[in-house]
Amino acid sequence: MTKTAAGRFFEDYAPGQLIRHAVPRTVTTGERALYHALYPARHALMSSDAFARACGLPASPLDDLAAFHVVFGKTVPDVSLNAVANLGYAEGRWLHPVWPGDTLRAESEVIGVKQNSNGKSGVVWVRTRGLNQDDVPVLEYVRWVMVRKGDLSAPAPETVIPDLAPAVDPSALVIPDGLDFTGYDFELAGEPYRWGDYEVGEIIDHVDGVTIEEAEHMMATRLWQNTAKVHFDATHRPDGRRLIYGGHVISMARALSFNGLANAQVIAGLNAGAHANPCFAGDTVRAWSEVLDKAPTSAPGVGAIRLRLVATKGEAGVLKDDAGKYLPDVLLDLDYWALMPL
Amino acid sequence: MTKTAAGRFFEDYAPGQLIRHAVPRTVTTGERALYHALYPARHALMSSDAFARACGLPASPLDDLAAFHVVFGKTVPDVSLNAVANLGYAEGRWLHPVWPGDTLRAESEVIGVKQNSNGKSGVVWVRTRGLNQDDVPVLEYVRWVMVRKGDLSAPAPETVIPDLAPAVDPSALVIPDGLDFTGYDFELAGEPYRWGDYEVGEIIDHVDGVTIEEAEHMMATRLWQNTAKVHFDATHRPDGRRLIYGGHVISMARALSFNGLANAQVIAGLNAGAHANPCFAGDTVRAWSEVLDKAPTSAPGVGAIRLRLVATKGEAGVLKDDAGKYLPDVLLDLDYWALMPL
Amino acid sequence: MTKTAAGRFFEDYAPGQLIRHAVPRTVTTGERALYHALYPARHALMSSDAFARACGLPASPLDDLAAFHVVFGKTVPDVSLNAVANLGYAEGRWLHPVWPGDTLRAESEVIGVKQNSNGKSGVVWVRTRGLNQDDVPVLEYVRWVMVRKGDLSAPAPETVIPDLAPAVDPSALVIPDGLDFTGYDFELAGEPYRWGDYEVGEIIDHVDGVTIEEAEHMMATRLWQNTAKVHFDATHRPDGRRLIYGGHVISMARALSFNGLANAQVIAGLNAGAHANPCFAGDTVRAWSEVLDKAPTSAPGVGAIRLRLVATKGEAGVLKDDAGKYLPDVLLDLDYWALMPL
Repeated sequence: MTKTAAGRFFEDYAPGQLIRHAVPRTVTTGERALYHALYPARHALMSSDAFARACGLPASPLDDLAAFHVVFGKTVPDVSLNAVANLGYAEGRWLHPVWPGDTLRAESEVIGVKQNSNGKSGVVWVRTRGLNQDDVPVLEYVRWVMVRKGDLSAPAPETVIPDLAPAVDPSALVIPDGLDFTGYDFELAGEPYRWGDYEVGEIIDHVDGVTIEEAEHMMATRLWQNTAKVHFDATHRPDGRRLIYGGHVISMARALSFNGLANAQVIAGLNAGAHANPCFAGDTVRAWSEVLDKAPTSAPGVGAIRLRLVATKGEAGVLKDDAGKYLPDVLLDLDYWALMPL
Repeated sequence: MTKTAAGRFFEDYAPGQLIRHAVPRTVTTGERALYHALYPARHALMSSDAFARACGLPASPLDDLAAFHVVFGKTVPDVSLNAVANLGYAEGRWLHPVWPGDTLRAESEVIGVKQNSNGKSGVVWVRTRGLNQDDVPVLEYVRWVMVRKGDLSAPAPETVIPDLAPAVDPSALVIPDGLDFTGYDFELAGEPYRWGDYEVGEIIDHVDGVTIEEAEHMMATRLWQNTAKVHFDATHRPDGRRLIYGGHVISMARALSFNGLANAQVIAGLNAGAHANPCFAGDTVRAWSEVLDKAPTSAPGVGAIRLRLVATKGEAGVLKDDAGKYLPDVLLDLDYWALMPL
Repeated sequence: MTKTAAGRFFEDYAPGQLIRHAVPRTVTTGERALYHALYPARHALMSSDAFARACGLPASPLDDLAAFHVVFGKTVPDVSLNAVANLGYAEGRWLHPVWPGDTLRAESEVIGVKQNSNGKSGVVWVRTRGLNQDDVPVLEYVRWVMVRKGDLSAPAPETVIPDLAPAVDPSALVIPDGLDFTGYDFELAGEPYRWGDYEVGEIIDHVDGVTIEEAEHMMATRLWQNTAKVHFDATHRPDGRRLIYGGHVISMARALSFNGLANAQVIAGLNAGAHANPCFAGDTVRAWSEVLDKAPTSAPGVGAIRLRLVATKGEAGVLKDDAGKYLPDVLLDLDYWALMPL
């Protein structure tokens, strides 16, 4: 009888499968305004058409993470509706700016499966691509999730674990066409610090905190058409709390990182990411960053900086305990490449 | 002294009156984005310009219910500011798509009045039309409300009860110009079920639930410029609770119905509707549908399906008690025509 | 080590300084829609392109206060991050409409400083201008704030107190190009009262109330890229409450004033303003207005009306106690010029 999608279970995935995700989405200046209302986003390139033009772009693109959330949201009904945990990200690259008016869709290829020893769940790796209305890829990334088995008697598949790069090689980063930071206006951007001012190992405490509200994280998560029940239904968990979409924490931390990294304008690569602990309404989220690496790029005046972005309810600069386990206050540990003026 | 509108009372209405409602409104991609942030709306035709073009439309129209809410909102100051209850809807038809950039206004004709036997209130029937900037009607519907008398000594008017159709005849449904579902992409739309797969009498449990927040229902209700005090002012009711605009529940239930009715893309007719019980913040809203009827249409590949859409805090499939009274968990019982691919 | 901006302290300001504020912002129909979702704004000129065209404008401009908030927000990191109190406004004028698609930036000149006798803080006066992408000024105003000293041993500067007009002279008000109210449609605008119907001294109780939510004031404040910590971080104050941005109260009161002042379409001047008491989530905000003055203008059919707009948690018409102190329920006392049809 049921016409309702129950989502895929672990035994439904096999390496080589191609999943064309449902519900393409046209993103507009409406999504852009909501992004600025939901997060304290201030990076000038994503705030001002005039600033973007002065940097060689035809207009201000949609925030890189908004594009990521839209693409990610499309994958949820096919990839993570029955997920126990979102385990990691790798090999993420932004390939083309998303402009207001673009229509995004998403496709994923299953690239790995490994049943857990308990026989009740397994890990699935997918490589997801977002494409615009002209079938131009706008971003791609690998993520892996732990998914429940629906039929516990289904045989374990042959284990396939993809060979993933520990980080995106900076030479593989894609710079938006035309991007040119040689005439960059630091005063208008909000901070004087250029690529050369950051040192590997440097820790930046972004100082500000935001207390999270239910209405806000649900609006964000719906805007990306992410359908995971735990984010919306207070009756879903025994404790009556709604689990906040990890992407909400990513965007909140990235926006907070303006204060100290105002010139890290473009997100170009996603090396790794862990949602270390769940986030709930009422939590006050803070952020800090660590400079992990730096690299030149081929674009005029543009350098790449590799950053660890940590969202925390606690203090800056501390991440794991002596056993290597994330401290309970840590919400997110994200490793990404950004583009800055030299 | 007062320049503040107190709203009309029962004795202020007479059959034949034409009310030209105030404050025209230009709707844009901003309203569209907010609709997707406030409701888990995923119907592809209202989500993607590219999908809409592949279905013969010039672009993705504003969600049919968003157009309804804008028109409805304009009528509130003139029709329901002193309403005791919103009693019903009938003969609703969507007549023309609303595109971002359109400006909507509304007009109502009083088509019936009946004073209650208690002499303190009465029922008023109005037929409302929404029109765009070119004076093209975009939708029309009848609703009736119970309105308080302002002057209890005002004489009872002659009773006029309009003769309303129990349902919109499917031959009267207006199909958007150009709509063609012959090349419909079911995979991209999210579900494989076509018009022929639904049987009259079939019940669909839409499974998902959303816990309602004050900030969200107030933002929605303001967005439609609905001014009814009970939605915004926690001091208005003795219990300190804000009554949620019934249209918020309609849109929430319709959006939840994606899961099982993803291909019921267009709302074309509103046959009836009852706000069975009030909804408050903290309620977790679920939805289920019953297939009431099916009919062909003249458009290529397009069938009409008549659906009962029920919003509930309880379980799917149950509606009324033995005495024919709505169960206390039931929030909404809506009867509408949608358009689906054959 | 720190790259995080701590904001300026009292000793960092000197008369004659020019501050070019960071992060230009393109405002769109997305910001417009959010404004209508966050406030019960219904003034027809800011709601409908068709209505605006009938009044001689090319389209519906962004709400005047939205433009003000965007410009104000840009000044916060440079002017009021270490402010103890926002003391006043003067000489505010809207100089050019802001249209969706415009990019706004802001500049301020320090025009006065006065160290407090306690030696720990001082008052700073700035004249701020907002400019669009063509460097056309869109608004200007003076505000003064009390700012903490960072270095208590810094010498007191020479006191400079600017000579500010008690109110903007109506002859200095700038009327939007083309504005013509001679064919004004009062029915569509929502109220029949014209400029001639208002008398100096008249009090208008706007009747409606809105209970304030955390999610809403934070979304508004972020939308204007206002970074003051107290609005977002519940751990910032000992009482765990987030202080609501005064501009949120201004926009809420102005929107509520539709009911009685629906035809006061355009805000043209800001004479003075006091945030009399703090506002917190859960407060139910009401508004009343007093007609302070009236003046003709040079534009066809357009009159100017000077209004006191009071936001209050209490009753209409009462403002101060016998000692001249604002009553504890009063949140805002704003003195502005609006443009109305004659």
